[in-house]
Amino acid sequence: MGRIESDQPQNSHFNPLNPEEFRKRAHEMVDFIADYFQNIESYPVLSQVQLGYLRAILPENAPERPEPFETILKDLQNQIIPGMTHWLSPNFFAFFPSTVSRAGFLGEMLCTCFNTVGFNWLASPAATELEMTVMDWLADMLKLPESFMFQGSGGGVIHNTTSEAVIVTLIAARDKALDLIGSDDVNKLVVYASDQTHSTFAKACKIVGIPPTNIRLIPTTLAGGFSLSPSELRMAVETDVASGLVPVYLCLNLGTTSTTAIDPIEPLACVAKEHGMWVHVDAAYAGSACICPEFRHHLNGIELVDSLSLSPHKWLLTFLDCCCLWVQNPNSLVKALSTNPEYLRNKQSESDSVVDFKDWQLGTGRRFKSLRLWLIFRSYGVVNLQTHIRSDVRMAKMFEGLVRSGPRFEIVVPREFGLVCFRFYPGENCGFEYSKMLNRKLLDWVNSTGRVYMTHTKVGGVYVLRFAVGATLTDDRHVAAAWELIKEGADALLKTI
Amino acid sequence: MGRIESDQPQNSHFNPLNPEEFRKRAHEMVDFIADYFQNIESYPVLSQVQLGYLRAILPENAPERPEPFETILKDLQNQIIPGMTHWLSPNFFAFFPSTVSRAGFLGEMLCTCFNTVGFNWLASPAATELEMTVMDWLADMLKLPESFMFQGSGGGVIHNTTSEAVIVTLIAARDKALDLIGSDDVNKLVVYASDQTHSTFAKACKIVGIPPTNIRLIPTTLAGGFSLSPSELRMAVETDVASGLVPVYLCLNLGTTSTTAIDPIEPLACVAKEHGMWVHVDAAYAGSACICPEFRHHLNGIELVDSLSLSPHKWLLTFLDCCCLWVQNPNSLVKALSTNPEYLRNKQSESDSVVDFKDWQLGTGRRFKSLRLWLIFRSYGVVNLQTHIRSDVRMAKMFEGLVRSGPRFEIVVPREFGLVCFRFYPGENCGFEYSKMLNRKLLDWVNSTGRVYMTHTKVGGVYVLRFAVGATLTDDRHVAAAWELIKEGADALLKTI
Repeated sequence: MGRIESDQPQNSHFNPLNPEEFRKRAHEMVDFIADYFQNIESYPVLSQVQLGYLRAILPENAPERPEPFETILKDLQNQIIPGMTHWLSPNFFAFFPSTVSRAGFLGEMLCTCFNTVGFNWLASPAATELEMTVMDWLADMLKLPESFMFQGSGGGVIHNTTSEAVIVTLIAARDKALDLIGSDDVNKLVVYASDQTHSTFAKACKIVGIPPTNIRLIPTTLAGGFSLSPSELRMAVETDVASGLVPVYLCLNLGTTSTTAIDPIEPLACVAKEHGMWVHVDAAYAGSACICPEFRHHLNGIELVDSLSLSPHKWLLTFLDCCCLWVQNPNSLVKALSTNPEYLRNKQSESDSVVDFKDWQLGTGRRFKSLRLWLIFRSYGVVNLQTHIRSDVRMAKMFEGLVRSGPRFEIVVPREFGLVCFRFYPGENCGFEYSKMLNRKLLDWVNSTGRVYMTHTKVGGVYVLRFAVGATLTDDRHVAAAWELIKEGADALLKTI
Repeated sequence: MGRIESDQPQNSHFNPLNPEEFRKRAHEMVDFIADYFQNIESYPVLSQVQLGYLRAILPENAPERPEPFETILKDLQNQIIPGMTHWLSPNFFAFFPSTVSRAGFLGEMLCTCFNTVGFNWLASPAATELEMTVMDWLADMLKLPESFMFQGSGGGVIHNTTSEAVIVTLIAARDKALDLIGSDDVNKLVVYASDQTHSTFAKACKIVGIPPTNIRLIPTTLAGGFSLSPSELRMAVETDVASGLVPVYLCLNLGTTSTTAIDPIEPLACVAKEHGMWVHVDAAYAGSACICPEFRHHLNGIELVDSLSLSPHKWLLTFLDCCCLWVQNPNSLVKALSTNPEYLRNKQSESDSVVDFKDWQLGTGRRFKSLRLWLIFRSYGVVNLQTHIRSDVRMAKMFEGLVRSGPRFEIVVPREFGLVCFRFYPGENCGFEYSKMLNRKLLDWVNSTGRVYMTHTKVGGVYVLRFAVGATLTDDRHVAAAWELIKEGADALLKTI
C-alpha cells in the first residue's frame, strides 16, 4: 500500500486542508510545473497515442484507500502526459493558441484558493467590484465608448466561453422581440451572420430555440476577404421582412476562426439598426489586438452595436476560461436572466445600484476570475501586453515571408493578425481535389513528427493549412524550424507521388 | 515606480512565462496561500464593507507599465481581502459550502498549467479519457447502474454548474419532443418540478425557449417534507395532456437548496415515463452523500431516469466549478448539441467510438478538470471521502441537538444531511410576521459580528434560519461557538423588544 500519508484517517479525523501539508505538496507541485514549462519541448506537441490508450491502463474503480502522492505524480508523468497534446508547447501552431503567463497563473491560484462564489454582491463584494473595475480597464484599453463601461451606463462581465456570451445576448434579443410581437411567434425570428462565423453561433441559436431554418449564414468570398457584405445582408434581411419574418440578431466577426476575416462593423450595424436588430461583435481572438492603436480601427463603429465579446484566454495571457462580454444596456440582460429566490435575498441586492452578476450569465455560481486579469494588467502593464501582441504578429509576418519565398507554396488569404493561411501548391495544373490530397498528406506528415502541430480549414472550396503563431513560449527559432520541417515534408511528399 | 521587474521589456523582448521567474513567484504564492488558510479565522467571515468600497479606491485605468509583485500582493491584502466573504472560513454556514482540499488544489494547478483545451479527443486524448474514467469511477462509487457508465452504454461529463447540466438535458428533451410533434409547437411543451426546485430551473427553461406559462412548479408542504407528491404530479400532467399540451421534462430534487428536501425518484419517474418525459435528478448538494451506503437509498429508482447531476464542488472537495452529469443515452445529447466545422475535423472524430465532449456541453472550449477528481479520489480514497461526508452530517446532528436543547428555538424541518433549518421561537403566541421580524433581526445581528455567516429561507410561509455545516475547515468547536453566538444574539434581542 505504500507509506502512510497524513491524510489517512486517524480516529476518524480527516483534514484535507491541513495548511502545513498543503504548503509542502504545493511547493513540490510548483517545481513539477516549472520543470514542465522548462522541458516542454521534449514532448511531442501532438500526442501520438491511439484511441483508448488510457482507459485500457487505468483501473476500473477508484481506490478504497489513499495512495501516496509520489505514486500519483509518477502516473501523471508516465500515463497522462504521453496522451496530452501540449497546448503550451512553443511548437503549437494549431487552432488559436490559448495564451498563458506567470501573472495569470498566480491569479488563478488566488482565485482557486479563495473559492469565492460571487453570484451576488454580498456573496463576495470584492469579487463583484474587482470584476467591474477590470472590465472597465479593458474597455478603456480597447478605447470602447463609455456607454460600454460601468463608469458610463453599460458594463462588462466575465464568462467562460464565447458561446455563453452569444447565448445570453441572443436570449436578451429574443425576449425583447417576443415582448413586441407576442410570445407565440418564436418561429418568426431570424438571425444573421456570415458563413465564416464559428459553428457555435448556429449551436447557440438552436439552444435558445431559434429554428435552424431561420439561421441565415450569408455566403462570403475569397475576393471579399471572407467578410460579410452589407449589401448581401440588406438583401437577406429585406427578403425575410417581405415574407413576414422578424430580423432579431446579427453576429459580426472580428477575426474568424478559419482565416481571421473581419466584418466591417459600421455599415453592417447600420443595416441591422434600420430593422431594430441586436448587433453582437464576436472578437474572440482578434479583439485583444485592438489594445494596439494600429489595430483599433477594426472596432470603428462599435458605438452602434449592442454587445462585444473577446476572449483574453486566446491572446491576453489569462489561461482558460476567460471570455469578456460588454453590453451597452445591462438591463436587457438582467431582464432576461434575473432570478430572485428567497434564499439569495439581501438588503444590498434590493438596491438599484447593485450589480449581481448571476443575472448577467446562464448559471448561478461563479469564480473570482477577475483576479487573473487584475494580476496580468498590473504585473505587465498595457505596454507589455501591446509588445506581446506585436511580437506574435511580427513572427506570423516572418512566416508569411518564408512561405512567399518558397516556390512551391502560396498564401491563400492575406494575413491580418497572427494566423497565416497557406498551402502547398507545386504546380499551375493542381486541381482542388489533388491540392487537397497533397496538403492533407503534408499536414498528416508534419503532425505525425510530434515536432509541430498545425491544423487546416476549407474556405472558398480550397483546403488550406493554418499556421497560428501565438503560443506564449514560441520564439523566432520555433517558427523558422517549423518552416524547415514543412519544406522537408513537401520534399518527401514530392518524391512519393 | 518601484524596482525593475524581469518582466519589463528589454529590447522589445517580453517573456511572461520565464520558468525560473515563475518558480520563484509561485513559491511565494504558495506561502501566501498556506498562510491565508492558517489565518483564515482572523478575518470576518462575512465582509462588512459598504457598496462601492473597492471601486472608490482602485484607479480608473490599468497601469501603462509593470508594477512590482510586492505592491500587488500588498494591495491584495489591504484592498481586496477586506471586501471578501470568506467561503473557506470554518465559520461559514451560509448557502451550501463549497468544499476544498489539498488534492483538489494540486489538481487545479495541473489543470491550469497544462491549459489543455479538450473540445475533442485529438485536442488532448488524455483529457477526454481521464474524464471518461473518473466519471465511471464516481458512478461506481454512487452505485449507479452500468447504463450510466462508459463501461456500459451511457456516460458522464464534467460541466461548470448545475444550470448547464439542466440546460443541455432540457434541450435534448425539447428536441426529441419537437421531432415527434413538429418544430412549430414549442409552445405546447410543458415541464414539471416541485416549488422547492432551485430558481435556475425556471431560468434554464426560459433560456431554451419553454414558455414561462408552461413551467409547472407543483406546491409542496411542510407535512410532506417539501417533497413532490406523485399523485399531485399525475394530476398536473393529466390536466395538461387533456388540454392538448405535451409533457416533456421532469426535474427531481435530491436535496433542495432551501431545506434539502428529497423527491422520491421511483414513483415520480414512473408517472413521467407513462408520458414519455425526460426525467432529470438534480442532486447538486446531497448526491455526493450517496457514496455512503446509509444514504444510497435516496437514489433508488435511478435506473428509471434519463440523467443525474451532482456538484462535487459542493461536497466532494473539488473547489469550483465542477458539476458531474450522467446520461443513459449520450446520443440524445450529441444529436442536440453536435457541430462539425471543417477546422475541427480529424480522423478520430469521424470514428463512431470516439467521445468529443464539445458535443455534450454548451460551448466548445473546456479545461482538463478531471485532473482534480482524479487527484482527490487517489489521494484520499473512497474511505476518506465517506468519512468526510459523515463528519459533516455528525456536526449538523450535533447542532440540531443544541437547537432542540434550547427552550426558545425550534427545528422547523427534520434534518437529513448537513443542513439544519431552525428558528428562534420564544413563545407560543408568536405569529408569522412577528417571528419573521425576530429571526431576521437575529440573523442580521449574528452576521454583523463577522464571527458566523448563516443565511435564511422561507418555506411554507415560515421564515427559517439555515445553518449549513460543511466548510472544509469546520470543526466541532466552530459549531459549538456558533450556537453560543446565536444564543447570545437571542438574549440581546429579547432585551430590546
